[in-house]
Amino acid sequence: MPVPVSTAQIEGVTFRGSSNGSVLKSVFQKTLAPDEVAIQVTHSGVCGTDLHYMMQDMVLGHEAVGIISAIGSSCTSFKPGDRVGWGYEHYSCGTCIPCLTNEECHCLNAGYYGASDFDQGSFSNIGVWKEKWVFRIPEGIKSEDAAPLMCGGASCFSPLIEYCRPIDRVGIVGMGGLGHLAVQFATKMGCEVVVFSRSESKRTDALALGASAFYNTRGVPDSDFSTLGITKPIDRLIVTTASLVDISMFYPVLARKAAIIPLTATKETLSVPYYDTLFNGVKIIPSMLATRFMQTKMLEFAERHNIRPIIEKFPMTEAGIGAAIEKLKNGDIRYRAVLSWDY
Amino acid sequence: MPVPVSTAQIEGVTFRGSSNGSVLKSVFQKTLAPDEVAIQVTHSGVCGTDLHYMMQDMVLGHEAVGIISAIGSSCTSFKPGDRVGWGYEHYSCGTCIPCLTNEECHCLNAGYYGASDFDQGSFSNIGVWKEKWVFRIPEGIKSEDAAPLMCGGASCFSPLIEYCRPIDRVGIVGMGGLGHLAVQFATKMGCEVVVFSRSESKRTDALALGASAFYNTRGVPDSDFSTLGITKPIDRLIVTTASLVDISMFYPVLARKAAIIPLTATKETLSVPYYDTLFNGVKIIPSMLATRFMQTKMLEFAERHNIRPIIEKFPMTEAGIGAAIEKLKNGDIRYRAVLSWDY
Repeated sequence: MPVPVSTAQIEGVTFRGSSNGSVLKSVFQKTLAPDEVAIQVTHSGVCGTDLHYMMQDMVLGHEAVGIISAIGSSCTSFKPGDRVGWGYEHYSCGTCIPCLTNEECHCLNAGYYGASDFDQGSFSNIGVWKEKWVFRIPEGIKSEDAAPLMCGGASCFSPLIEYCRPIDRVGIVGMGGLGHLAVQFATKMGCEVVVFSRSESKRTDALALGASAFYNTRGVPDSDFSTLGITKPIDRLIVTTASLVDISMFYPVLARKAAIIPLTATKETLSVPYYDTLFNGVKIIPSMLATRFMQTKMLEFAERHNIRPIIEKFPMTEAGIGAAIEKLKNGDIRYRAVLSWDY
Repeated sequence: MPVPVSTAQIEGVTFRGSSNGSVLKSVFQKTLAPDEVAIQVTHSGVCGTDLHYMMQDMVLGHEAVGIISAIGSSCTSFKPGDRVGWGYEHYSCGTCIPCLTNEECHCLNAGYYGASDFDQGSFSNIGVWKEKWVFRIPEGIKSEDAAPLMCGGASCFSPLIEYCRPIDRVGIVGMGGLGHLAVQFATKMGCEVVVFSRSESKRTDALALGASAFYNTRGVPDSDFSTLGITKPIDRLIVTTASLVDISMFYPVLARKAAIIPLTATKETLSVPYYDTLFNGVKIIPSMLATRFMQTKMLEFAERHNIRPIIEKFPMTEAGIGAAIEKLKNGDIRYRAVLSWDY
């Protein structure tokens, strides 16, 4: 593993996507700007979103944890040696309307994974990022556990805090990388949590993580969810599946004024059973991005409530990344892959 | 016109739908329950929803204004002679979860137009309804103007109050019975209001009612709304059209974290451009029903701000109703038809 640098010229090893989908080792050089920090990456989560960029000539990965190795001249929040992470967003302008309304995750000039800074990512030994979008990892969370929280954790925590109350009955659809974190967050918020999944093999984990019920939706005759025996309706339905589900199936078990909150990152079209939505006062609120406030509170909440991802570790090498990606593609990761330099 | 009754046995003349879509005169008899009032109807609005029930054997109409002619033995809010109205909802149980959370318009045991009480409606000379779902008409609003407010007014007022702020730029899609009221409500709330309509003939009225801009969407090349010259994005898009519009066309002019609020009452499926919704933090919040609180505040707000529907009057006769319905079907009403016994 390379030695941390503390000069203004940063060099790093990275792993890029390529036109045939294989992962290629590469290098980058970058001059540290005054408001940037360099982070020696120790761990990176592997997120479903990474699969979207495998064929792009860009550095992959956006769930990083590491150690600050250098800070720019105007940085004030961190010092070398601090343990930090970064996630899906890298930059916000601070002056547009979303930034002025505590919605800087929707900044009109934002830098996001897959859309800018293609020479860097968390599949690397170092990252150079704006100090403002770097987050301190609480002491009580191991780095390998913190990595998947940086995007996956924040993605499900943010809508839970924004749209769910402890008195709500929360349905988590899909029990994967996001779902198994959402179950924990919602449970610790005091919600009554139920899981909808097509994998019977996840039942035990779902209940162990706090769900009060697990509904295997694979075996439902005619996809008629009114046969699931749910007598108490679902107030908030968090959809964490990799592809969109047919949300109309869930309407028989939704409460009036329920909210459906898909976290799925996909270019598909969402078909909404409109009249039932209208008449029952249901809201459709897709959610993906988290503010810095939510990122910070998510980490604090995870530490305080001992919320941890269940991870499978892989080495941070071309082969290790390839193996993690392959397993993720096949839906076989239980529940989040983490790449590590000290595997 | 029959004389108001004050006995417990109420008789009335009504106008019903029928299997061939023609309006038939009929009668009903009903014993006044202790918690019910009898209302001698003077005016009724004609709403797009009425068209859905023309072929049903049920009394039509749900935008009534009239005079209390009798009150049940336990009624306390009204006395004979009071001027009142009723709308889409007739009953709520008061004990289910929506009722307990100030959402009695979503009561699990609600009585709605088209779903219960088929022997009564506002196309009649009298109605017998629960006192709790009857609303006093403010002195400053004429009965013929109050009628369309009872459903149309409440339908657009409620989401404006719930989801829009005076600092929002509000787009009203469709400039008909609901749209022309929504423009007025939003303007008086202090919002910046723009209208999207396919009828150039409505431009003058839209601007006169308070809109700051009118966009004729019929002439937009390739339905590419980014060519409309909108530099300031829309925060809240209220869709008031009779059929669903292709909402994806509006995404180029929406703000981050915008809300799309369709009021359209239809059984169609809504196609949502999912990724743009997710990434931009857009919410989809169809809205149809109003609480009693909103009904009450809507009437108060309309009186205070001189918000009035633009109406076309028709006699409350089989022929008059037929003529109003025909004109409504053809999209030729400017902007709300009102039936009147003293036409």
